[in-house]
Amino acid sequence: MAYLMQGLCGLPRYEPGEHEEGEGFVRLNTNESPFPPSPGVAQAVAEQIDRLQFYNDPDCAALRAAFAKVIGVTPDCVLAGNGSDEVLYWAFMAFADASHPILLPDVTYSYYDLFAAALGIPLERAPLKGDFTVDVSDYCGAGRTVLLANPNAPTGYALPVSSIEWIVRSNPQSVVIIDEAYADFGAESCVMLTQRYPKLLVTRTFSKARSLAGARIGFAVGCPALIEELNSVRNAVNLYSVSRMAQAAGEAACRENDYYMNNCRRIVASRAYATQALRDRGFTVLDSVTNFVFARCGFMDAAALQRALRVRGFLVRRWDAPRIADWCRITIGTQAQMEALIAAIDDIKKEGDTHAQRAD
Amino acid sequence: MAYLMQGLCGLPRYEPGEHEEGEGFVRLNTNESPFPPSPGVAQAVAEQIDRLQFYNDPDCAALRAAFAKVIGVTPDCVLAGNGSDEVLYWAFMAFADASHPILLPDVTYSYYDLFAAALGIPLERAPLKGDFTVDVSDYCGAGRTVLLANPNAPTGYALPVSSIEWIVRSNPQSVVIIDEAYADFGAESCVMLTQRYPKLLVTRTFSKARSLAGARIGFAVGCPALIEELNSVRNAVNLYSVSRMAQAAGEAACRENDYYMNNCRRIVASRAYATQALRDRGFTVLDSVTNFVFARCGFMDAAALQRALRVRGFLVRRWDAPRIADWCRITIGTQAQMEALIAAIDDIKKEGDTHAQRAD
Repeated sequence: MAYLMQGLCGLPRYEPGEHEEGEGFVRLNTNESPFPPSPGVAQAVAEQIDRLQFYNDPDCAALRAAFAKVIGVTPDCVLAGNGSDEVLYWAFMAFADASHPILLPDVTYSYYDLFAAALGIPLERAPLKGDFTVDVSDYCGAGRTVLLANPNAPTGYALPVSSIEWIVRSNPQSVVIIDEAYADFGAESCVMLTQRYPKLLVTRTFSKARSLAGARIGFAVGCPALIEELNSVRNAVNLYSVSRMAQAAGEAACRENDYYMNNCRRIVASRAYATQALRDRGFTVLDSVTNFVFARCGFMDAAALQRALRVRGFLVRRWDAPRIADWCRITIGTQAQMEALIAAIDDIKKEGDTHAQRAD
Repeated sequence: MAYLMQGLCGLPRYEPGEHEEGEGFVRLNTNESPFPPSPGVAQAVAEQIDRLQFYNDPDCAALRAAFAKVIGVTPDCVLAGNGSDEVLYWAFMAFADASHPILLPDVTYSYYDLFAAALGIPLERAPLKGDFTVDVSDYCGAGRTVLLANPNAPTGYALPVSSIEWIVRSNPQSVVIIDEAYADFGAESCVMLTQRYPKLLVTRTFSKARSLAGARIGFAVGCPALIEELNSVRNAVNLYSVSRMAQAAGEAACRENDYYMNNCRRIVASRAYATQALRDRGFTVLDSVTNFVFARCGFMDAAALQRALRVRGFLVRRWDAPRIADWCRITIGTQAQMEALIAAIDDIKKEGDTHAQRAD
């Protein structure tokens, strides 16, 4: 039964973070916000219900204008999509193909692999340095499409804007895509660089800092000419992908930006607590500027830790992948969730110590 | 400024039906339902707002189960997407490529052209017969991927299931895609054929009969093996594309299916009225089994009619395309809207007659 086109046979399967709809689990595995959407979202969505029989605005004009205002650019510098995943897929289509590979780190957001496989785009991987930081020189003068998640996942590290600018300046013939999904938790955004560099494309999402993962809202930001080219691809692939409800929710979230920025500050504070508490317990924890920490346990292997946490109601993320198999990525939830997580880890450690004593 | 990959330069631009958000226009140009969603949709969506910070179910399990029940198949025969446009795009990717063209009618849904252009898929066009019906023999034994909108747009004609079965049986090595966007207004659905023919893929949408155009909900229906292959493409392109709000809205609509089927009966009745009233006024009107009629005016050209109707607050659709440039596609709205449309046409005709008398 070979229905599929040959190029698509054996596509890798993306394994999303475990999706547990029921109660009883603290979801620290998909970098969601622990806070609900801002108060205006409910009303904005409710107002759309009696108009759902009508198509949504394919241009997303109000949403784009609202987000453009938040980040300080004009609306023609912004394109909206069904999550930044869709926007990134369009960017892969637009700015790479079988004979134009994409250069990216070996350890980064794993969904990029799927886009590339589906579109027949070769990926060239520059290894992160031994300490999981990006070697900027790998990307300077690369002469090909560059993709960097900045901050990177799952490491949580970010390059400063000056490094991004260096990469962009040294690749004047190539599009540089910066995925800023996690830019609101303490990193510098390079959005303003798009106003000076016509081949820089920045993607953003409302799934992390804006508490709207389940609503599917993402953006690309670039100079108007670059956005227009990306838009021609969007136009041909899925012109109506941002529903009325998503457009209304996203617009309301832009109006209530202070609420989300305040939530980010709370997450940053809890991240500092969790980082220190984990280090106090023998973990190696990278200095994150995101809403997660990447951590290696000092007293048991990562798979065992993940299982032990799951038994205690905490979901965390881990990959069977080179270099990172012994690390867990732990989303920063509320302060109470982080304290409960640390208590669970103390419990796991104590149980381990007891077993060890019995074994002695 | 050549950022785009060469294959994507000069993509045709899809011109969607005019999107008028304001009051004052009766939208008979995009085949939307004139009726709002069923009562349960508002509540179902509202219940999701406080969970929007969490990702939606990538498997759309509840929505797929609900729709599978409506159409009488098992959930593993159903795949959900962000509108049937997204599902069709995945099907184009999965079942055609540069060396595997798609055979389809010359007059049909024009967005197919965009998918093909974006993906580099050649389209082979079988001309509709002079009366705008499909010549079934064009598709029998074609030995390539076949795509038929059934009912077709903008003609409004449908093939019977027996003809679809003939096409499918005679192409055992090729996937046959039947786009049933308009199947709820009087045509026969071939969904049950998918249970016997493993290469038949049927797409459906909630944008027409289900009053959810602005929510973006579509489906593919096929045998489990075919759906699994399509799902591997979905998995690689946009796994989370059906938001929490869309999944909840769609599930509620499935529970309240009777409401929508009753609306369909109302539209069928108004279609009969509009068809006769237009014919009484000298229009040629095809016998539609959809929620629109395809009509040629007997007393003025189509572009002039479209403009004259717009002045009077009615939007209808027309294409500058071979064979159909002198036809308008008119969505069937409520009975009151259809009566108002006919009154506007009488007014236009009277004005034309007055001008003609003055010219004498």
